Amino acid sequence: MLVSLGMHGQTLKSPNGNFVLEFSINEKGSPLYALSYKGKPVIQPSRLGLELAGGSKTEFNAEIRKQADPKTSLYDGFSLASVKHSAFDETWEPVWGETKTIRNHYNEMEVSLRQNSTERSLTLRFRLFDDGLGFRYEFPAQKNLSYFVLREELTEFALTGDHTAYWIPGDYDTQEYDYTISRLSEIRKLTEAAKTDNLSQTSFSPTGVQTALQLKTQDGLYINIHEAALLNYGCMHLELDDKNFVFRSWITPDANGTRGHLQAPSATPWRTVIVSDDARDIPASHITLNLNEPSKIKDPSWIKPMKYVGVWWEMITGKSEWSYTYDLPAVQIGKTDYTRVKPHGRHGATTENVKRYIDFAARHGFDGVLVEGWNIGWEDWFGNSKDFVFDFVTPYPDFDLEGIYRYAKSKGVKMIMHHETSSSIRNYERHLDKAYQLMNKYEYPAVKSGYVGDIIPRGENHYSQWINNHYQYALEKAAEYKIMVNAHEAVRPTGLSRTYPNLIGNESARGTEYQAFGGSKPNHVSVLPFTRLIGGPMDYTPGIFEMDISKMNPNNKSHVNATLANQLALYVTLSSPLQMAADLIENYGRFPDAFQFIKDVALDWEKSIYLEAEPGEYITVARKAKNSDQWFVGNTGGNTPFTSDISFDFLDAGKRYEAIIYSDAKDAHYKDNPQAYEIRKEIVTSGSRLKQVSVPGGGYAISLKPVK
Amino acid sequence: MLVSLGMHGQTLKSPNGNFVLEFSINEKGSPLYALSYKGKPVIQPSRLGLELAGGSKTEFNAEIRKQADPKTSLYDGFSLASVKHSAFDETWEPVWGETKTIRNHYNEMEVSLRQNSTERSLTLRFRLFDDGLGFRYEFPAQKNLSYFVLREELTEFALTGDHTAYWIPGDYDTQEYDYTISRLSEIRKLTEAAKTDNLSQTSFSPTGVQTALQLKTQDGLYINIHEAALLNYGCMHLELDDKNFVFRSWITPDANGTRGHLQAPSATPWRTVIVSDDARDIPASHITLNLNEPSKIKDPSWIKPMKYVGVWWEMITGKSEWSYTYDLPAVQIGKTDYTRVKPHGRHGATTENVKRYIDFAARHGFDGVLVEGWNIGWEDWFGNSKDFVFDFVTPYPDFDLEGIYRYAKSKGVKMIMHHETSSSIRNYERHLDKAYQLMNKYEYPAVKSGYVGDIIPRGENHYSQWINNHYQYALEKAAEYKIMVNAHEAVRPTGLSRTYPNLIGNESARGTEYQAFGGSKPNHVSVLPFTRLIGGPMDYTPGIFEMDISKMNPNNKSHVNATLANQLALYVTLSSPLQMAADLIENYGRFPDAFQFIKDVALDWEKSIYLEAEPGEYITVARKAKNSDQWFVGNTGGNTPFTSDISFDFLDAGKRYEAIIYSDAKDAHYKDNPQAYEIRKEIVTSGSRLKQVSVPGGGYAISLKPVK
Repeated sequence: MLVSLGMHGQTLKSPNGNFVLEFSINEKGSPLYALSYKGKPVIQPSRLGLELAGGSKTEFNAEIRKQADPKTSLYDGFSLASVKHSAFDETWEPVWGETKTIRNHYNEMEVSLRQNSTERSLTLRFRLFDDGLGFRYEFPAQKNLSYFVLREELTEFALTGDHTAYWIPGDYDTQEYDYTISRLSEIRKLTEAAKTDNLSQTSFSPTGVQTALQLKTQDGLYINIHEAALLNYGCMHLELDDKNFVFRSWITPDANGTRGHLQAPSATPWRTVIVSDDARDIPASHITLNLNEPSKIKDPSWIKPMKYVGVWWEMITGKSEWSYTYDLPAVQIGKTDYTRVKPHGRHGATTENVKRYIDFAARHGFDGVLVEGWNIGWEDWFGNSKDFVFDFVTPYPDFDLEGIYRYAKSKGVKMIMHHETSSSIRNYERHLDKAYQLMNKYEYPAVKSGYVGDIIPRGENHYSQWINNHYQYALEKAAEYKIMVNAHEAVRPTGLSRTYPNLIGNESARGTEYQAFGGSKPNHVSVLPFTRLIGGPMDYTPGIFEMDISKMNPNNKSHVNATLANQLALYVTLSSPLQMAADLIENYGRFPDAFQFIKDVALDWEKSIYLEAEPGEYITVARKAKNSDQWFVGNTGGNTPFTSDISFDFLDAGKRYEAIIYSDAKDAHYKDNPQAYEIRKEIVTSGSRLKQVSVPGGGYAISLKPVK
Repeated sequence: MLVSLGMHGQTLKSPNGNFVLEFSINEKGSPLYALSYKGKPVIQPSRLGLELAGGSKTEFNAEIRKQADPKTSLYDGFSLASVKHSAFDETWEPVWGETKTIRNHYNEMEVSLRQNSTERSLTLRFRLFDDGLGFRYEFPAQKNLSYFVLREELTEFALTGDHTAYWIPGDYDTQEYDYTISRLSEIRKLTEAAKTDNLSQTSFSPTGVQTALQLKTQDGLYINIHEAALLNYGCMHLELDDKNFVFRSWITPDANGTRGHLQAPSATPWRTVIVSDDARDIPASHITLNLNEPSKIKDPSWIKPMKYVGVWWEMITGKSEWSYTYDLPAVQIGKTDYTRVKPHGRHGATTENVKRYIDFAARHGFDGVLVEGWNIGWEDWFGNSKDFVFDFVTPYPDFDLEGIYRYAKSKGVKMIMHHETSSSIRNYERHLDKAYQLMNKYEYPAVKSGYVGDIIPRGENHYSQWINNHYQYALEKAAEYKIMVNAHEAVRPTGLSRTYPNLIGNESARGTEYQAFGGSKPNHVSVLPFTRLIGGPMDYTPGIFEMDISKMNPNNKSHVNATLANQLALYVTLSSPLQMAADLIENYGRFPDAFQFIKDVALDWEKSIYLEAEPGEYITVARKAKNSDQWFVGNTGGNTPFTSDISFDFLDAGKRYEAIIYSDAKDAHYKDNPQAYEIRKEIVTSGSRLKQVSVPGGGYAISLKPVK
């Protein structure tokens, strides 16, 4: 039973009745909510509200300034004005994704609150789905609250105990951490060790963590806390009161320390709580997408999933470089004459090298080729707080933009643009139109943008309202130019790809590059579907076949903590409309049979069925390719061996399928025998089962095709 | 004689020998300079140098970080590496201005310094003209100083005594103060009273003042301190050590408190010291322009001086409003539907009203009509820290953009655009291209831009490096679109109109609008030529004929502290290629004979001769119109009556001129009889003289035309 919320509680139930949300107002007039699942409390009575900033004459408009205290409270003194219930059930089709259709089915409760002392109104909107809760604050148009400044959002998530958490440290500037799995009570002592170095990082609390946060209770309940539709607001972190196991929202501040400048009418992002006693329901949930608005792109025919290779891993490993010369300690874009400097000979983005990748892409059916380091400015791009760092249109002398365009076009391959901003936001915005126009001219359909290093304007944070608005600006402007965006180091996604399906990828987590920077935990990829991917697809850049980085660069002793079969599985487990085969193309030539899976695997799906799942230990998913009768299965394990045991009952009954199973060899191990894999063919039907061992850091991939 | 600078002093003389600059390095290795004029010390030995900021990994590049202390010193530990002398003499033609040609004649000393402990180089470049000094710091390209952060510039101006200063309080956000005339030692006690209210203001020191700072010594020497070519740097204020009468530079900081992020090779703006024993030489000096680079606009044929009227004074006085409705507490640009709101009926920028101004402009030979409040967003534009405040392209429903364009064109009148940014800088930059494109489409040749209120990004200052770079960006982009810029509330000009002659105006001081906000000091306009105008022309918006503001708006009791004749004189004394007849056009109809002077007066000059001058007391200047044989004379006085006594010996000998003299009537007074003026015609020759009384707040204007 729920802890009682008092006399005037309002109740909302999910369509299937599994969830009950109770809302009430306490004796101080503060709103509270509580959530139960199948009769068990999930969120104990927790406060809701916001604290506003006061004092500065520019922060409030005249009406607000007239108010005496408690002018900064939007968290108490409330009484209930009205409660409206409604239901919604609609099925919609995403432009791309894990399923061809998505059902958006919820019961809604709209709670209107009135703060009598200030004559202000606040609306709380709760949506209860069959797999969890979404709620947000809404600020109706009103006389006494038109412009206001957020000091902090005071949303609480009061948990029922010392759950297991799959967490990364709260940080205003990076999400690129390995996950720590611990009890909530252990976060404080583990957080320093969890904060590995990053090129820009700003932590704020020893119990601060990021969302999507995955939790597991002692009695086997899986709880996931995240947000949806993060627009014109700072990204939400969570800070834990580790005496009482209460998380509270912690909004990323702007440079001036405030959490947001808002205008009514408006709304906060949705806060989401996905809950199930079956871990498979967490990655399968569509709550995040459903809480976003329908697509604003009327004709999305130009948005197409892409599989790509690129001139990238060679720079990440240190085999080659983004830059062109060592002669220039300080480049002046537009003034520095690159034709007069001595090339260092280690430049990756040369016409010759790029053509090699184009040839490879054409030969193996890839859609695109990404090239980083093609444009001038890489000699001093990082660490100098440099404003005018790139112009995004001028190639290095050894990169023949026009010639490469023609060559790729003749081969039926699209080039993928790269815009590293060095986090110099104003500079990027100033060049955005010309940069996108260049892409249109040379028919680049997509851009990978990067935000490495500390933000300029200096003092700003990667996930503040101000900077989040920039990512959105770049995305919306890209849509005007019919350009797809894959933003790295940008704020984590929150389902915005429903509204702007040209957001085909984000990094926003620790990606494959860290395998060349010292390595990631073997079970990292089995955490991501429960955390980072809740908000949207990740450009994880899988497909590394050579785990010994010193073979590319003798000075780099890093090791890729994954087996080759694991790398194949990622194309299925980490679903994305944008998938890279990230390794050097010459490494694919060494393993053509395994490479075949990367060539075959689909990017867009009719349906997805999570077969097995336990965060950080294993995940197994079967996906049916869109407009096709082919299926693909992927499994990744964790730090220890895992025996997958699946049924093929998702297949069409009565059909025979040829299954090609790419698995770890028995003696494979991510550490000392990662390239040991086996490939076997079997005929399976909907009545078949498979038992398959994945070694530590391992996994398997299966392609399934009906036999004619 | 100069105080000796020690054994290793270097000396530079001005071409005419009046100025001697001495440079030396003291026992700590700090550079010093001193300046004398006609054998009298002007600047006593004064320190030069800069202090850098250290500590943050992003502030320095790798080479710098390796250095131990004194890594932050660019002010001591120097030895002399080399000294180079050179001379320069060139005459150039500005696109517009006070004279048709300008002689740029100086002797130069380039002092190269070496800081041995850091292996860094610093260059000091001194240019000594016949009317003063310019010097700057230069940072050559070098290994140990490529990217660096300025904590403060340490330039000193050590004065010889307790001079009289004509000053306004130092402020990062406004220059719109009345001038205070006091001894240096009195600044501290007078500064609070001098800080009148402004919509954005940030003072920093009780002895902080702004440049151009005019000084006068007890023995009658006039000294003016300012800067030239302020580019990619914070604007320089001065802070006084009022025990020793030493000013030191105080650079406007960025939001993060640093004074600038710099990259070598580069240079600071020039610091200027104009000196004369004749006050007339100060406003006549061309040092500020000469220290700027030649024009970057190859074909300036589209840059044309403009005389204009506009829908402006009626909003300033409160007779009408910029906004359209009272229905909207919070506008959402692009969403708010203005066709569904109730107009308040007080909107100034209506098609009908604008056409009235177009008719007037056409009838009286004005080039343009400015209209403020034409575009949506004025309902909540100020005080809300609103980001997306204007889109600069969408007119109010009652402003027919297309129809007005056609109507003005049919009458031979150009429309002048207005872009109030509300200091929301990012928003303006995002819309700049489309806004300029709209101007091109409707053939608006010029834009008045405004930066009212606190800057967004929040925490930034109006005159910081970051924001100065914005003004420059808007100016350079305007040049691409062949648009002339008149920026209000932007940083004060520093002669940049030589390089970018499309910068045809700035406000950057207390303009006529304050006459409707409580009034300015009567002698204000006789200070401006010695202070604000040293950097460039001001869009002062003169020509107010109705001094009783309550006649326009019964609720506004402000009084214009000037006589009508004074208002005419301003068109000559405050030279500008952009001159407004700022009053309501109906007020001109009441005084057609006086209005004739505004119609006649030129905007661009062959030559200018300062006949009489004493800062804050009087200024009398004669100017010959460019490509014409007409002359115009203007005089403004101060707070007390002034008898001007001038010779017409500047006229062509042997020619007879009809002089129309617009003067104060004998019983005129700015306070209680401002509209009492006299107009008389006389025939004058180069042998004529004139004695003419200007009453308090008064002045006179003369047009001179050869008699055929």
